[in-house]
Amino acid sequence: MKIALATTGGDAPGMNAAIRSVVRLATEMGHQVYGIRRGYCGLIERDWWAMGPRDVSGIVNQGGTILRTLRCPYVETEEGLSKACEALSNFDALIVIGGDGSIRGGWALHERCGIKVVAVPASIDNDIAGTDTTIGFDTAVNTAVEAIDKIRDTATSHERVFVVEVMGRARGFLAVSVALAAGAEMVLIPEHPFTLSEIESSLDEGEKKGKSSSIIVMAEGAGYAPSLVERLARDRNYSVRLSVLGYMQRGGNPTATSRLLGALFGEEALRAAQDDREQAWLVASVDGKLVHRPLVDALKPKDGPDMRMFDLVSRLAV
Amino acid sequence: MKIALATTGGDAPGMNAAIRSVVRLATEMGHQVYGIRRGYCGLIERDWWAMGPRDVSGIVNQGGTILRTLRCPYVETEEGLSKACEALSNFDALIVIGGDGSIRGGWALHERCGIKVVAVPASIDNDIAGTDTTIGFDTAVNTAVEAIDKIRDTATSHERVFVVEVMGRARGFLAVSVALAAGAEMVLIPEHPFTLSEIESSLDEGEKKGKSSSIIVMAEGAGYAPSLVERLARDRNYSVRLSVLGYMQRGGNPTATSRLLGALFGEEALRAAQDDREQAWLVASVDGKLVHRPLVDALKPKDGPDMRMFDLVSRLAV
Amino acid sequence: MKIALATTGGDAPGMNAAIRSVVRLATEMGHQVYGIRRGYCGLIERDWWAMGPRDVSGIVNQGGTILRTLRCPYVETEEGLSKACEALSNFDALIVIGGDGSIRGGWALHERCGIKVVAVPASIDNDIAGTDTTIGFDTAVNTAVEAIDKIRDTATSHERVFVVEVMGRARGFLAVSVALAAGAEMVLIPEHPFTLSEIESSLDEGEKKGKSSSIIVMAEGAGYAPSLVERLARDRNYSVRLSVLGYMQRGGNPTATSRLLGALFGEEALRAAQDDREQAWLVASVDGKLVHRPLVDALKPKDGPDMRMFDLVSRLAV
Amino acid sequence: MKIALATTGGDAPGMNAAIRSVVRLATEMGHQVYGIRRGYCGLIERDWWAMGPRDVSGIVNQGGTILRTLRCPYVETEEGLSKACEALSNFDALIVIGGDGSIRGGWALHERCGIKVVAVPASIDNDIAGTDTTIGFDTAVNTAVEAIDKIRDTATSHERVFVVEVMGRARGFLAVSVALAAGAEMVLIPEHPFTLSEIESSLDEGEKKGKSSSIIVMAEGAGYAPSLVERLARDRNYSVRLSVLGYMQRGGNPTATSRLLGALFGEEALRAAQDDREQAWLVASVDGKLVHRPLVDALKPKDGPDMRMFDLVSRLAV
Repeated sequence: MKIALATTGGDAPGMNAAIRSVVRLATEMGHQVYGIRRGYCGLIERDWWAMGPRDVSGIVNQGGTILRTLRCPYVETEEGLSKACEALSNFDALIVIGGDGSIRGGWALHERCGIKVVAVPASIDNDIAGTDTTIGFDTAVNTAVEAIDKIRDTATSHERVFVVEVMGRARGFLAVSVALAAGAEMVLIPEHPFTLSEIESSLDEGEKKGKSSSIIVMAEGAGYAPSLVERLARDRNYSVRLSVLGYMQRGGNPTATSRLLGALFGEEALRAAQDDREQAWLVASVDGKLVHRPLVDALKPKDGPDMRMFDLVSRLAV
Repeated sequence: MKIALATTGGDAPGMNAAIRSVVRLATEMGHQVYGIRRGYCGLIERDWWAMGPRDVSGIVNQGGTILRTLRCPYVETEEGLSKACEALSNFDALIVIGGDGSIRGGWALHERCGIKVVAVPASIDNDIAGTDTTIGFDTAVNTAVEAIDKIRDTATSHERVFVVEVMGRARGFLAVSVALAAGAEMVLIPEHPFTLSEIESSLDEGEKKGKSSSIIVMAEGAGYAPSLVERLARDRNYSVRLSVLGYMQRGGNPTATSRLLGALFGEEALRAAQDDREQAWLVASVDGKLVHRPLVDALKPKDGPDMRMFDLVSRLAV
Repeated sequence: MKIALATTGGDAPGMNAAIRSVVRLATEMGHQVYGIRRGYCGLIERDWWAMGPRDVSGIVNQGGTILRTLRCPYVETEEGLSKACEALSNFDALIVIGGDGSIRGGWALHERCGIKVVAVPASIDNDIAGTDTTIGFDTAVNTAVEAIDKIRDTATSHERVFVVEVMGRARGFLAVSVALAAGAEMVLIPEHPFTLSEIESSLDEGEKKGKSSSIIVMAEGAGYAPSLVERLARDRNYSVRLSVLGYMQRGGNPTATSRLLGALFGEEALRAAQDDREQAWLVASVDGKLVHRPLVDALKPKDGPDMRMFDLVSRLAV
Repeated sequence: MKIALATTGGDAPGMNAAIRSVVRLATEMGHQVYGIRRGYCGLIERDWWAMGPRDVSGIVNQGGTILRTLRCPYVETEEGLSKACEALSNFDALIVIGGDGSIRGGWALHERCGIKVVAVPASIDNDIAGTDTTIGFDTAVNTAVEAIDKIRDTATSHERVFVVEVMGRARGFLAVSVALAAGAEMVLIPEHPFTLSEIESSLDEGEKKGKSSSIIVMAEGAGYAPSLVERLARDRNYSVRLSVLGYMQRGGNPTATSRLLGALFGEEALRAAQDDREQAWLVASVDGKLVHRPLVDALKPKDGPDMRMFDLVSRLAV
């Protein structure tokens, strides 16, 4: 098989481990992988090269993606789709590593061009339906938790309230894991509405119990953090500070889990590429098992974060 | 309920997160937790104190165990068991956080004294039957992987072969995860016999393919690493170096996964303590789900490491 | 001697190492240290306790300050000063660990109450005259550099421009060290005016040389980062992103250098306390040597950042 | 000028930052740098290439050396020296980045071939005379300190004595800085003889004062660590463990200080290359200032570690 390989959308740590896995295993199986530069836009521009095992040396522990990536609205136009299909006529299959947008793009290409598509879920937000986890999620959780460990030093020393905004796009998966692992006092997510007075009474309770500092983890999709900080500071004489963790959550050396997922998802992607029962597959981790399942499963909205974990944040913050 | 809580055997990062979870949730539920110092020996010496929510403040991100721990052969004697039972008559249940030895000790106490026992698996070796993972394992994997990332700088710069010994007691779970995540060229584990000539021919093949350096991850249970290094150095003109990662794998701030497992296993332990269908439970993660299951399941020998992961190490090292 | 010991103003990693050093060495020398809680406000409230060597166990690697800290405007009032002097009449000397504000406060107390004052410079901003470096500066530099290493993964993968705002209050010391160590393309500091068109032409040049991504490190005192990002994005079709590193730069486990400085400054503080040539001293590192010098030297404005380092940032970004 | 650039001997983190600095600044000044692969042996084999600014992109944060390195005894032979001189006739100057052996090799080449030589001190051991510090030293100190932070978790939890062997070749510089920063109870170095009974009485004293665990940092040049552990374990009923930190101390992403030193030493090396007062220079940091000084100064034995720091280790371990 001639396999086109691309990373699209936001980068996630562990993408390189997945690229390495696909290239080396495909070579072993007698396939040829072509690396597409800059995602779907690079596909349209026919910017690719034949990759061999040495091209992926020394990248297993690197963040980002050696294939580069780009959000590419052009591929969603009639013209873009058509050019992408022409380009894809050079290949037997497309393996695309990325998040939500990559998967929708992959599905559109499959529908339009009839090409076999295998999507490998990679996203620090873990917001892809059909899989329990994604490449990069574990790294982002750890990066945010380590940042909050540092912030807590100052929170404790100064006896302050900190609101820490984490990523997650429209979902609260990252925020819940981060808050529980960091031992935060509260977590605010889009899936679970909250009012200012609930937050304030919770802070008041903490104070009564002897807590001299608090960390509130807020998902970026849960509201506008600066407003919350301003209102908390105004309503009470709380000393409240804001920290927006930002883009560092997207990079960094991948954790072991993100690398292992890269290696394993890469292998499963090749199994899917050879499985002709469907022409569009999602590689996934489901109940601790590696599988490939129809890509259409990834187009549904994903269930919310684990409520047991969500509840534990406040239950443990006593 | 009056609950005795102890950590026994080797420490593992995330034990403190589990202690925090048990103490705070038990308090919420109206139980009283008594912290036993220094494991089963401390139990026999009746060295305990009533713990409240503030006693576990600021420990979620700390390695080690605030309860201290000790291997205690005395508890395996007739006399020791008898004294432990007397001490346990003060409590309604014993929650013990630890590895293989803790579980066998917990089972013995359950059988002898009839006390309700809940074992929370914590071990950097992940060698406990009945659960897919243990508190501390993810941290140890990451610690070893980060150390190998550093060693690879020197291996690459000097074009050398490095044998890196990792922990794991009699099993290869840690070694396999570490080797795959670190992108090592080879992994040697007790569950999979190997010969010197196999290792040498693999190194030779790597050299032919243009590899100028190699990392061999060796489980401590797979043989005597210094001998291997000596024989490799003698047989060929390889420049071979040994690195024994040692005790640092047992400590350090827990990763997010080890902390989350601590929080969740702690909650499940209290569910088990209240579940009277059995008098001895193991808290476990099975196929991505949290459960408690009869403790007797933990006494069986554990199946070997994932062969898919084991095979991937060499397949990806091309 | 009865020595009052306080940390005041913003916390800095390594303060605890300095506290440990002062307490243990003072005990060895036969002095008694009293730990003041929450800086000058705690002094006024007479919130202190007699510290012994065991009170500072296990803190050498902890960020923040076990003495807690608070900015205390009250001590600058007539009434506050007067109460502080009354409180200080219980002690023979005051050792204060902190930044600019601590030093001015210490000087005011010395002038008003006539008490011997020794100031130990601790600040992540390194903006204190009379010393080449401060406790915590090295840690903050490393924290910011590691964050930028992560951000660069995304910058490179997406071929974007990133503006990264670092701390430093009104000065550019932190920004210059961070930018040079991180290999940033540009550094913007208050001490060196710049125009938008200079920044843009520098980005243009980089693009011509084949740079596909750029990192601009901006000191918080050098302007309003969101405006800069907005104008860059508007003027050109640059894909520009902002990251404000924020409070995590103030916390975290201290680096070796910050801990060593804590230990050594602590010792020098006791030498100063016993040196009666002056009644107000600054502990300092000058040209690689530890000294104590008249505290009045710390009240002058500090010279600007090393211009050799500042120039190297752009010279190396070719 | 045509400048030959090599890294020789053991690798040290920050070498790549120095390579980047030399290549980019030399290009700016109108010189041409030729990168020699694998140190002096590569020079003899004429394995070099003309380097431009893009060849050193993305390496500032990488450990190891992109030029590779090799210990090369052949260059010390009559024949080797003669061939090296022939190769050097292609260049106007040689800049060599490395440790003790590199400097002796550079001096021999200067004496034999009359070529201008500039040595840039890079060594994790900091054992080079004429400079207060070396590229890589700060990184190695931090790596060892972070490892000991992890080991201390286990030491504290198990109430054990740990002997931790650190690198340093024949000198104790690394051990002293590590021990003081890690808060170790004792440090054993070649420059300061010690007896077993001194160690034991110090451990006994610590026990009396309530210390339940101890860390002894031992320089590799101070004796055979396994023997010490064995004798301590035999003489007392101490639970003593050994950890040999090993090669990980040589690699890893350089700290900010090691990167800054790389950038600054690189610039100073070019100043030295253009300074014709001498034909063999050492780049150095002396009393906090960057200088270049006659290379002959580096051939003397280096003074011992700072005794103030050495003494502080035990004074602070009370």
